[in-house]
Amino acid sequence: MYDTIIIGAGPAGLSAAIYTSRGQLDTLVIEKGPSGGQIAMTELVENYPGFPDGDSGPNLAEAFQKQAEKFGAKVVNGTVKEIRKNGNGFIVVMDKEELETRSIICAMGADPRKLNVPGEEKNVGTGVSYCATCDGFFFRGKDVIVAGGGDAAVEEGIFLTRFANTVTIVHRRDELRATKILQQRAFDNKKIKFIWDTVITEIVSNGAIKHVILKNVKTGELREHPIHGVFIFVGHIPNTKLVKNLLELDEHDLIQVDLSMRTSVPGIFACGDCRSAAARQMVSSAGDGATAAISAIKYVDAQKAEEADKTVRA
Amino acid sequence: MYDTIIIGAGPAGLSAAIYTSRGQLDTLVIEKGPSGGQIAMTELVENYPGFPDGDSGPNLAEAFQKQAEKFGAKVVNGTVKEIRKNGNGFIVVMDKEELETRSIICAMGADPRKLNVPGEEKNVGTGVSYCATCDGFFFRGKDVIVAGGGDAAVEEGIFLTRFANTVTIVHRRDELRATKILQQRAFDNKKIKFIWDTVITEIVSNGAIKHVILKNVKTGELREHPIHGVFIFVGHIPNTKLVKNLLELDEHDLIQVDLSMRTSVPGIFACGDCRSAAARQMVSSAGDGATAAISAIKYVDAQKAEEADKTVRA
Repeated sequence: MYDTIIIGAGPAGLSAAIYTSRGQLDTLVIEKGPSGGQIAMTELVENYPGFPDGDSGPNLAEAFQKQAEKFGAKVVNGTVKEIRKNGNGFIVVMDKEELETRSIICAMGADPRKLNVPGEEKNVGTGVSYCATCDGFFFRGKDVIVAGGGDAAVEEGIFLTRFANTVTIVHRRDELRATKILQQRAFDNKKIKFIWDTVITEIVSNGAIKHVILKNVKTGELREHPIHGVFIFVGHIPNTKLVKNLLELDEHDLIQVDLSMRTSVPGIFACGDCRSAAARQMVSSAGDGATAAISAIKYVDAQKAEEADKTVRA
Repeated sequence: MYDTIIIGAGPAGLSAAIYTSRGQLDTLVIEKGPSGGQIAMTELVENYPGFPDGDSGPNLAEAFQKQAEKFGAKVVNGTVKEIRKNGNGFIVVMDKEELETRSIICAMGADPRKLNVPGEEKNVGTGVSYCATCDGFFFRGKDVIVAGGGDAAVEEGIFLTRFANTVTIVHRRDELRATKILQQRAFDNKKIKFIWDTVITEIVSNGAIKHVILKNVKTGELREHPIHGVFIFVGHIPNTKLVKNLLELDEHDLIQVDLSMRTSVPGIFACGDCRSAAARQMVSSAGDGATAAISAIKYVDAQKAEEADKTVRA
């Protein structure tokens, strides 16, 4: 039986593993893809504190994992199929085995929803971005295009005007879904332009992004639009299907937590992008991970003491 | 007028400054002591993710500050005397000047309460500790003494049994203040011993800690007690006096926040050890700082848009 199983080896999960393993919890981390989560696909991380010259996402992910393993955490590849309650603990169902654990730390992250157009995937990190806070700084004095029409698209579009020369918001409808006050702010901002009834059908690059191909959904007309960067804010898909029948989720399917990262089920903790109201930054996820780990250690300590007590009385 | 003034240059404040300055907020950080806060006094930080071999507290603090300054944050030494509301913004009163700002990020930290006995201060980081999560790992197979009798002392004492050979809890009274269930857990733990009605009056070292001098408060008797490490859990003093009439605090005088690090006053944010329910770790403070910064940027953006709107209509 493990003391804790951490699902996901992004910054949140690996930071949690550093803390649980250093705190002597028998710790297993299960990751379905490459270690690092979204960070693994980021060329330059400039805003993780402690690295004034920045570092690459894969380098940082490797350092996190090395640190967790140094303290005894085991990191494995695999897919969790199901989580079941089992007395005071839980059973984590994998492809070919079932694992027992006293506690679970959910760190499954969320994936930005993609446009799924040609040229999108290969330009992630070199002109296509899903995070203005992360990448806006790289587009000082440049022209960028934003896909989306909800709160995130408009809010991040306004944020991007701090850096970019122009921000063009492309939306498939003829009005925004964003709240009125945000809309007004965007309309009042001289750097922001709108293209309505339009979608991006292709991102064309040649080392750097050259242009996007825009399609008017009403007329079907296609045209080239020269641009330096493409920011896509069409939602996030939290990886929380696994726990939707077990834990309380918010209206965005994110796991509800308190300030100590405890979920609605004692013994299950959540951290990083899969939890409600996350800041979606590497360092905030790592911070969450440490907090969740400390809560898990307290929980496991209490549970072991309770069991010892029962054994004595029995 | 500043966009944001950050009070405190520990991990929370400097991380916030990296984010606000990179987000183009005109940012001032005010610190009354050396940069780094509690971290500045820590010889080896093993659990800040990204540094598998650990690093010294001062090194990490310097890296944080360099990164914030690289993006344009200004870090100054000084003491904030008072914070006043000023229309939509705030006035931060310093010794010799008054500064205007649109927003404030509180990152003033908390100080562990000290015993104030000879030998305590000079052995911090080399045998005297106020944090079991941080330093317990360094005492594997050793004998440690814990000062205190509240929840923290007992909980951390139990945690230390993961590493230490024996944990002796020294308490000035003849019973613990800790909750009953924690007390029972400590009494049931074979590694934990108690010395009642006793205080530590001196910590004697010679490179490493040699022994403490214990005084029975009822008989006045003094005796030497050989030990490897001294953990002191007699409370924390949050540095929140400055805001106690302005913000809602919890029962421990910590600043109440939501998951986005917003306080009870719009435009004031809080992060790190001065906020309620903090995990009191370097990475959790840094994570909080990023979260507070992102909330501050949204707030300042909204405020500027509102003002621009008023100007247009006027």
